Amino acid sequence: MTSGGDVTVSPGNVPVYHKNNLEVIDRRVKVAEVVLRCMICGLGILAAVLVGSDTQVREIFTIRKKAKFTDMKALVFLLIANGIAAGYSFIQSLRCVVSVIRGSLLVNKPLAWAIFSGDQVSHLCLRLRLSCFTLRVMAYVLMAAFAAAAQSSVIAEMGQPEWQWMKVCNLYEKFCTQAGEGMVIALVVSLSMITLSFISAFNLFRLYGETEAQNRGGW
Amino acid sequence: MTSGGDVTVSPGNVPVYHKNNLEVIDRRVKVAEVVLRCMICGLGILAAVLVGSDTQVREIFTIRKKAKFTDMKALVFLLIANGIAAGYSFIQSLRCVVSVIRGSLLVNKPLAWAIFSGDQVSHLCLRLRLSCFTLRVMAYVLMAAFAAAAQSSVIAEMGQPEWQWMKVCNLYEKFCTQAGEGMVIALVVSLSMITLSFISAFNLFRLYGETEAQNRGGW
Repeated sequence: MTSGGDVTVSPGNVPVYHKNNLEVIDRRVKVAEVVLRCMICGLGILAAVLVGSDTQVREIFTIRKKAKFTDMKALVFLLIANGIAAGYSFIQSLRCVVSVIRGSLLVNKPLAWAIFSGDQVSHLCLRLRLSCFTLRVMAYVLMAAFAAAAQSSVIAEMGQPEWQWMKVCNLYEKFCTQAGEGMVIALVVSLSMITLSFISAFNLFRLYGETEAQNRGGW
Repeated sequence: MTSGGDVTVSPGNVPVYHKNNLEVIDRRVKVAEVVLRCMICGLGILAAVLVGSDTQVREIFTIRKKAKFTDMKALVFLLIANGIAAGYSFIQSLRCVVSVIRGSLLVNKPLAWAIFSGDQVSHLCLRLRLSCFTLRVMAYVLMAAFAAAAQSSVIAEMGQPEWQWMKVCNLYEKFCTQAGEGMVIALVVSLSMITLSFISAFNLFRLYGETEAQNRGGW
């Protein structure tokens, strides 16, 4: 049990102003976090499947021509980035659930603190501060993959007449539509990852503030 | 004057462990911050100038052909993003200097706190928490601009034979070399901005921790 100024801080005796804060903000943050993680997982897989299955065969004057997603290296990058984001999000969610289950069986001091303060999931997960960094790096990679794919798509859709790069989307309509759908979903995944990394930083701020306050109080 | 547990915290009486912390970490962080801001400012302008002045005229069988940076929309995006980053970095640095100068003339309570705690520049600047958010958004935009330009360059350099998009870099060698130089510099600017936004978040953590500790102590 540690004391901080006039307020006694312990797992069993959480200060009123702190509890109010938790109740108001935490519920929204938690819901947003869970929704975003699920979105990234589901939509990441959807984007990867849409891009990975994107192919079209056309016959132009007896010449059989095939467009596939591997022709456009940016789409391969997009597929890999979204696959990794979906996988990471899934593993991270699983880890959270496992931590909570194990925590309720094997109660030790920091776990008790986290559980009693009423903020189990995010505190348990955010003790791994690396996850905040990883989310951010992943957000940059997803954004870069989307931007590269978007650039390719603009050329495929509009052509680049100055350099004699023809439009290909009037030939491979179905291919372009499917790639476009995949990219819109990839954009949503990127933005969700950016938002999640902001939330993660926000959670880390609070955690840091609490740890600091406890340390100061304990001195 | 506020008291936090056993340690009296006031502008005139900074706790020893805190001061040691500041002395060790702050000098390095400050130097890194200043170096990064200068790099972003200088290299951002250089990248914008290199890209903006990129043009080449070739005569192919009496046909006069011109490649200019506006042909490649991603290069225009890269130029704008780097220009904004350089401008923002310059204004932000100027703001810091002005704050410090004004602060030493017009001493009020929070300024006094910042000055006495020996961490003038970063505290004064970081009181505008928005700057952390802005840096991060800018880092995303710079990364996206670089990725889009890199994708265009790969097509220009290697071609896309499946879609009859020819290489253009064997025709416009000087144009491609200059664009490549601009892009390498833009990549350095992006990475510097990402690092700066990490440093900014780190500073904000400390600031947040201190404020929290003070608030807790004051209760």
